[in-house]
Amino acid sequence: MNKPDIRICFFGDSYVQGTGDDECLGWAGRLCASARRAGYNITYYNLGVRRETSTDIARRWLAECEPRLLPATENYVVFSFGANDLSLVDGQQRVSESETLANLRALLDSATNRYRTLVVGPPPAADDDHNARLARLSERMRDVAIRLGVPYVATLPALVDDRIWLDEVRDNDGAHPRAAGYARLAKVVAASGAWWFGKQ
Amino acid sequence: MNKPDIRICFFGDSYVQGTGDDECLGWAGRLCASARRAGYNITYYNLGVRRETSTDIARRWLAECEPRLLPATENYVVFSFGANDLSLVDGQQRVSESETLANLRALLDSATNRYRTLVVGPPPAADDDHNARLARLSERMRDVAIRLGVPYVATLPALVDDRIWLDEVRDNDGAHPRAAGYARLAKVVAASGAWWFGKQ
Repeated sequence: MNKPDIRICFFGDSYVQGTGDDECLGWAGRLCASARRAGYNITYYNLGVRRETSTDIARRWLAECEPRLLPATENYVVFSFGANDLSLVDGQQRVSESETLANLRALLDSATNRYRTLVVGPPPAADDDHNARLARLSERMRDVAIRLGVPYVATLPALVDDRIWLDEVRDNDGAHPRAAGYARLAKVVAASGAWWFGKQ
Repeated sequence: MNKPDIRICFFGDSYVQGTGDDECLGWAGRLCASARRAGYNITYYNLGVRRETSTDIARRWLAECEPRLLPATENYVVFSFGANDLSLVDGQQRVSESETLANLRALLDSATNRYRTLVVGPPPAADDDHNARLARLSERMRDVAIRLGVPYVATLPALVDDRIWLDEVRDNDGAHPRAAGYARLAKVVAASGAWWFGKQ
């Protein structure tokens, strides 16, 4: 019997892209490589883009899905963002909380009609104030996802005191880890129960 | 001194995507991981899409570059396609040779005005007839690229008798190798002299 032909698109920001990882996998690539080794026939599309907010992702995600997720394949989408929405440019938050949540709602309304969908919450940086604001945003995002019946993996609580994550983030650029940090993040998602492709 | 902030987009088909590779890197990911390990500050965007022809790529490439390649970053684009153009659907070749070459010309005219650009020729499958047609197309593609001053890396001559490549392709699906085959292909591109990020 042929295995299902699984296609998965990851949309998000630099954390999805894997910025800082010399192995060029990030957490998304590590999850898909593990799934392939476990026997799933997965095609991995990483569509994380550095600096993007939820507004940027909302603008492009569907156009980028269309050539990649075909009527005849088994299609999955993962969204992960939040940190750039909160960041300040000239003292102004790039995207307000209500806009972030409205973007998430719109994304999920549209995505869940087409694809199996998962949301992965934003991971912490090496900045307590940012992390406190991000924790609050992540909780609100979870509420939106859960209300729409979409699983949500909070990553901040698991990583905010994680030595490996924090040491790499601090040693790198204050925001992004290196290979070992991304491996930790992949583990958090894999262990959540919400990731579809665990050991078979 | 800060290192240049290098962003690179790879556009192409399943070979660019890395179909069949359990490590989820393909040749493009291996090249970028090597470059990062050599000290280049590279952000790697893999925009290969399975089944796509040059016509499909021409349609989407610029829209997908725009959020990823920013005015303030040092930007590179790699194109690699050809095998799907040649494939037959209901006895009809999907894209004629003259269309493939016109697509390549249009892509390069537009890309070279904006980004440092490279073309990587299509690699062989486990099918002598297909390979003979592909070798001819690859030579014509090289002529187009060279005439426009864009470096072209032919991969078919280097791989058509390569044991590792052919054994994996045959053992897999007749078209795509696995991890070791993609590592061979990455080596061919790295050794060509046209790849920008060798050992520093």
